[in-house]
Amino acid sequence: MTTVVNGVNVEALLGAREVLKGAPEAAQFTWRASSAWRHGVESTVTIQNYFGLGQEQSHKEESVFEADHPEIFAATDHGITPIEYLLVGLASCLTAGVASVAENRGIKLHSVEATLEGHHDIRGILGADSDVRNGFNDIKVTFSIDADASKEDIEALVAQSQKRSAVFDALTNPTNVTVEVA
Amino acid sequence: MTTVVNGVNVEALLGAREVLKGAPEAAQFTWRASSAWRHGVESTVTIQNYFGLGQEQSHKEESVFEADHPEIFAATDHGITPIEYLLVGLASCLTAGVASVAENRGIKLHSVEATLEGHHDIRGILGADSDVRNGFNDIKVTFSIDADASKEDIEALVAQSQKRSAVFDALTNPTNVTVEVA
Repeated sequence: MTTVVNGVNVEALLGAREVLKGAPEAAQFTWRASSAWRHGVESTVTIQNYFGLGQEQSHKEESVFEADHPEIFAATDHGITPIEYLLVGLASCLTAGVASVAENRGIKLHSVEATLEGHHDIRGILGADSDVRNGFNDIKVTFSIDADASKEDIEALVAQSQKRSAVFDALTNPTNVTVEVA
Repeated sequence: MTTVVNGVNVEALLGAREVLKGAPEAAQFTWRASSAWRHGVESTVTIQNYFGLGQEQSHKEESVFEADHPEIFAATDHGITPIEYLLVGLASCLTAGVASVAENRGIKLHSVEATLEGHHDIRGILGADSDVRNGFNDIKVTFSIDADASKEDIEALVAQSQKRSAVFDALTNPTNVTVEVA
């Protein structure tokens, strides 16, 4: 299959899968970010370099993100809140998966839109109730997809995307996070 | 304590904590994102509106984020990868926490920087080894903080920030994520 229907180079990805089966060390990536506090609860996070395929790599451009809290939290609202960045990652990861799986199945996509809702009881982070967790209570993602495929085939795309999604896994399963002071 | 040392309005936050103890329904927030697939594995995610304190709310400005995959993944690298957005959220959440706790303890911060590393075995998402998870293996955060405080007091700031961090909780503990097709 050489016809690219959605712009995803599935052949390259399938080739990488075969190569990495025999070279697990090349599959070990390290994604990096660096952050700097600005003022109040505002900070700037910069991303450009990472490690993978056995060597240092770099995105074509440096990306810089602002995070803050809204005015109703007595802050300056110079950027979205940290927890909202998790929704950015989840939306884009599931969408990339839908496009990749559709490509692999020869399904032409016309549009893939999603709305996400993360429910959050802020009594946790404020310390108002120790029984309330700090993070999201739950997250709901609703896709609206226009494609040359049946409803069942579209639902199967979304299901397979979830199954292979890095961010879906990172949010639905625990990860060990170590925080140190240099 | 009315002296603002780091620009965090702690009095307002402590006031909110007291108010929300008696008004749990006002503490129920819904953070929202909407995404649109562009081409290949690239998508755009938009954030502006959310719900909280019993009514619809809005950030001062709409924020738009691009996510993509790098050229070594045979993609166009028009933005950072979805999983890197999780590092943006984690860095900014822990940093906001350090600033807030420092404010509450009367500790003047001069700089708060952090470097994050997320280790990721991409054999999971590629389907090369079903025993490898899709998400991060683990994440390491290293803070470098200059403040008018002892090393022990600085370490205590970071520890308390972790304890109240929405994103730290969301990554270290599981969250139920429901994905549907409209």
